Amino acid sequence: MGEANSCVKQTDGFEGLDAAAIFARLARLRARAPRVHAITNTVAQTFTANVLLAAGAIPSMTVAPEEAEAFASRADALLINLGTLDQDRRNAIPRAITAAKKAGKPWVLDPVFVDASPPRLAFARDLYALGPTVMRANLSEFRALTGRDMDGVADEAALRGIVVALTGKLDRVADASRTTGIANGHPLMSRVTAIGCAGTALLTALLAVEPDPYLAAVTSLVAMGVAGEIAAERAAGPGTFPAALIDAIDALSEADLSARICLVP
Amino acid sequence: MGEANSCVKQTDGFEGLDAAAIFARLARLRARAPRVHAITNTVAQTFTANVLLAAGAIPSMTVAPEEAEAFASRADALLINLGTLDQDRRNAIPRAITAAKKAGKPWVLDPVFVDASPPRLAFARDLYALGPTVMRANLSEFRALTGRDMDGVADEAALRGIVVALTGKLDRVADASRTTGIANGHPLMSRVTAIGCAGTALLTALLAVEPDPYLAAVTSLVAMGVAGEIAAERAAGPGTFPAALIDAIDALSEADLSARICLVP
Amino acid sequence: MGEANSCVKQTDGFEGLDAAAIFARLARLRARAPRVHAITNTVAQTFTANVLLAAGAIPSMTVAPEEAEAFASRADALLINLGTLDQDRRNAIPRAITAAKKAGKPWVLDPVFVDASPPRLAFARDLYALGPTVMRANLSEFRALTGRDMDGVADEAALRGIVVALTGKLDRVADASRTTGIANGHPLMSRVTAIGCAGTALLTALLAVEPDPYLAAVTSLVAMGVAGEIAAERAAGPGTFPAALIDAIDALSEADLSARICLVP
Repeated sequence: MGEANSCVKQTDGFEGLDAAAIFARLARLRARAPRVHAITNTVAQTFTANVLLAAGAIPSMTVAPEEAEAFASRADALLINLGTLDQDRRNAIPRAITAAKKAGKPWVLDPVFVDASPPRLAFARDLYALGPTVMRANLSEFRALTGRDMDGVADEAALRGIVVALTGKLDRVADASRTTGIANGHPLMSRVTAIGCAGTALLTALLAVEPDPYLAAVTSLVAMGVAGEIAAERAAGPGTFPAALIDAIDALSEADLSARICLVP
Repeated sequence: MGEANSCVKQTDGFEGLDAAAIFARLARLRARAPRVHAITNTVAQTFTANVLLAAGAIPSMTVAPEEAEAFASRADALLINLGTLDQDRRNAIPRAITAAKKAGKPWVLDPVFVDASPPRLAFARDLYALGPTVMRANLSEFRALTGRDMDGVADEAALRGIVVALTGKLDRVADASRTTGIANGHPLMSRVTAIGCAGTALLTALLAVEPDPYLAAVTSLVAMGVAGEIAAERAAGPGTFPAALIDAIDALSEADLSARICLVP
Repeated sequence: MGEANSCVKQTDGFEGLDAAAIFARLARLRARAPRVHAITNTVAQTFTANVLLAAGAIPSMTVAPEEAEAFASRADALLINLGTLDQDRRNAIPRAITAAKKAGKPWVLDPVFVDASPPRLAFARDLYALGPTVMRANLSEFRALTGRDMDGVADEAALRGIVVALTGKLDRVADASRTTGIANGHPLMSRVTAIGCAGTALLTALLAVEPDPYLAAVTSLVAMGVAGEIAAERAAGPGTFPAALIDAIDALSEADLSARICLVP
């Protein structure tokens, strides 16, 4: 007998988004151990690498421009996160994206803090125009990058022909024809750095084993949210929370997902 | 009934430095959630971000020169830490300081390892001449930067018209007219990297909510020291200590401060 | 009465590699507190610094080219790890090696991911030709760098006149005349980033207190392997494992080593 799911708003009929399907994708990730090249900020690198390893992926993280093609080409998916955007990253990112696109590999754009820095916003707009498989942002970043508000997520996804994942208290994922809200998670997740960045890395890893990027995106947000809820029950505070979150990702079961998954229209 | 305070040397009459006043500043930090831009070394970034978040501040950490003004201007206080001083940091730091000064925001200089590297010392001297609100150093760094010894802290603070925080087994804070020693802390704090760096970041955050930088500096050192004592009782060793320290910062109460605060003349 | 050692393959007669000799080296490291300058990747920096501190060494980690000589010269040993090989690292590494060699200090090459990137491989070959005291690699990296397979470790060590440490499920260390396998460790050690990188840093620290680099290398791998076994018993998963590993390194006793050391021919 599983724990009762407290998500009263959960609806049936989210095709491919029941606990069994979500768990199957996470199991596939573990079985296939895809390579993920993550050009991400220095603050999030260690935690991101450990989240990817806990989920079964193999991370690489170099930011050297002359190595960008080699690492992006051999990877199964590419993450571009714009935090701590130094000159090496600026030079490496377009080369990595070009290599991934040429190799037919999915890539994800995480336009961290574009609302805070005009040169970063300009750079992010150029990258966004290259057509990421998925773009993930919080509301401030989404507004800065697209000029739209929270209710414009589905329109933006349709216009661009991509998946948009907007994260916040309630996460929302949309592609041209589908949208869902994900109400899993815990307040401690915003009391610690790099949780969102690592979540986008998990999303990237799932793109390597799930051809439908909409399903991959929802899967990653449900997995992180449920793992965050479990970790919050075990952690003594924001200090012990990140390690507990990685333990929870590693041990995540179909029963955990079934008991806690909370999707809303 | 609180725990007995074992600090026999504690004296009354440190104006603004009783447990209630210190706790009030920490509560104000939590309530106001100031932005802190931290140009700090890559070793300390993640821990520093998590300490700032645990204390209630909002960190940003980019080191890109072209973004330095934007991030420093929107922040409420700026931290300059000279560890892992690469070319991006060298270029970004003067721009960030100029932007902070122009915006009337406080800034802190942490001249990490200036005793180890002549080019870093030269760079630090140039920055020091720009007049940080607070300069924090250990004894070797203080000697290298100022040519003074431990008993010269108050003179240096008076000459420069700044607050100097000298950290070590006994911390000492001085401005032109006041000085206090802070005897809180635990030996485990020097067995782990980035504790001092993160403490200076907490000091920076407090400058955003406390107009008197002397009081802000003492407050941060008492808070870190007391949290370190609590964490040491919970940690199994230097590995589990950093997470326990963040948990302790997050949960720090006025009773904890009252039971443990240890100021000496 | 110690715990029974489950390593049935352990043989006597590994000169200088009994538990008492290994512990004596670790105690010497703690007593002497050597300085280790580690030019290592941004993903591994924090964990590496904390492993070095837990073992008793004093880490520095700057990658600025103009500071490479100063930091390498004052250090007692130098680590060159090629992860996240950006332009600053490329420029700093040859200068640091030259300074270490000039000062007669040992240095270690860890050619991370040279199998993944042709420019990195070319750079690594140039460094390898400079004659590191010890070269540590996993099998893919060893193959890429030397063109040899697992059974060629001793030949490579003899040809180069260096110590080679090949890490994997079974670690192997060889110099021109001696070789041993180290069967300590735990599967969790490959589920977390930076464990290998930090192990090579510990090896580097031991070179500062043990003039025979073969003994230093085996000592570091036994210490990490045994600490990993202890940590795995205490950790709840890969998230809590790194902190438990550092706690175990800090607390490692001769009895722990004696109960668990597992060397094979």
